[in-house]
Amino acid sequence: MDRLYRTQLVNSLWGFRPLTLVGTTDKLENPNLTIVNNILHIGANPPLAGILFRPPVVERHSLENILETGFFSLNHITNSFYRKAHQTSAKYDRAQSEFEATGLEAEYKDGITVPFVKESPVKVLLEYTDRKEIELNGTVLVIGKVIEIFLDEKILNKDGFIAHEKAGVITGAGLDAYYETNLLHRLKYARPNQPPQEL
Amino acid sequence: MDRLYRTQLVNSLWGFRPLTLVGTTDKLENPNLTIVNNILHIGANPPLAGILFRPPVVERHSLENILETGFFSLNHITNSFYRKAHQTSAKYDRAQSEFEATGLEAEYKDGITVPFVKESPVKVLLEYTDRKEIELNGTVLVIGKVIEIFLDEKILNKDGFIAHEKAGVITGAGLDAYYETNLLHRLKYARPNQPPQEL
Repeated sequence: MDRLYRTQLVNSLWGFRPLTLVGTTDKLENPNLTIVNNILHIGANPPLAGILFRPPVVERHSLENILETGFFSLNHITNSFYRKAHQTSAKYDRAQSEFEATGLEAEYKDGITVPFVKESPVKVLLEYTDRKEIELNGTVLVIGKVIEIFLDEKILNKDGFIAHEKAGVITGAGLDAYYETNLLHRLKYARPNQPPQEL
Repeated sequence: MDRLYRTQLVNSLWGFRPLTLVGTTDKLENPNLTIVNNILHIGANPPLAGILFRPPVVERHSLENILETGFFSLNHITNSFYRKAHQTSAKYDRAQSEFEATGLEAEYKDGITVPFVKESPVKVLLEYTDRKEIELNGTVLVIGKVIEIFLDEKILNKDGFIAHEKAGVITGAGLDAYYETNLLHRLKYARPNQPPQEL
C-alpha cells in the first residue's frame, strides 16, 4: 500500500475527531499555536485530557513548550476560521508566530502566560500533569488537568453540557477534512429493559 | 460543583468525538457489544488506535474480553441506528447479549471470532497490542493494531480518505449527544507563505 494512501486511510479510519488549537509559549514567552486532532478525554474528576504528539525526533515546538512551561491552552475551532486554523499546521520556523502568520488573534488573560485564540468560543487552560510514552511508534501522550474554562455562556446548557454546535464549533476527519455538525438528539441514560428515549 | 453537572461539562469540553461500537467475546465466545467515545488515533504505520477504559474496579466486560482473547472489532455508528447503539451502554448482565437486547445484528466473518455489527458501514478488526495505565484516575488505554478493514467502497476516496458522512456515520459530544455532519471542505497540505487552499 502506498505510504500516503495508507496515511489517509488510517487517519480517517476512526471517524470524526475533536479539533482544537493548542496555545503555548517557550521560556521567553514567544507564543506558539498548532492545530491538533488527537485529543483524548481521560476523566471528569479530576478533569483530565490527553494530547498525543508525534515522536519528538524533529522539532515539536508545542510539546517542548508544554514540558518547559507546564501549561497549555486549548481553543476550539469554528466554521468561521477553520482555514486559518489549518494553516497553523505549516512548518513555520521557531521564530515565526503562527498568530502573525495566520491572522488569528492572540488573547492573553490576567496572570496566565499562555496565549488563547480570541476568535474561539471555547478556551481551556490546562496544566501539564503526566505523560505516557507509546513505545510502539514513539508517540507521547501528554496529560493535562483543566485549570480554567472560558466559555460563551450561550452555549452552556443548564445541566453542564456544552452545545458546541450553537457556536459553530466544527469536527474533523483524517488529516484535512472539516465538518459542521447538526444535532440529532440527546438521549437519556440507558437502562436495561427500557427503550432509548430522547432527553 | 455538582457531580453530574461536572461530569456533563468535562465530558463535553473537548467538542465532537469519534463514536464506535466495540465487539468482543469472552473465552466461551459469548458476544459483547458496547458503545465508546474514547478512541485515539495513535499512528498510521503501524496502524494503531487506543480505547480508554474506565477503572476496572467493577465488571468491564469489553476490557476483560479484549485482554482474554486478544481481539476486538470497531463498528461505526450511523444516523439509522444510533439509538440502538446508545442502548448498548445500559448495564446488562454478563449473560445477556447486547445484540439481542438492542436488536443490532451480529455479523461473523470467516476465521474471526469477534462479532461485527452488520448495520455498520465501517468495520475494523484489531489485535490487542499494548496498554497504558493512567495512574491519575485508574483508566486504562488499550492499544490495538488494525488487522483488517471492512468498508463500503462507495465511501472510500481514491486517495485513501474515508468519507464517513456519505454513509451517515455520526459523531458525539458529551455522554449522550449525537450529531450528523456536513463536509465544509478538505484543505491542501499547509505550507508557510501559501494561503490555505481547498483540495
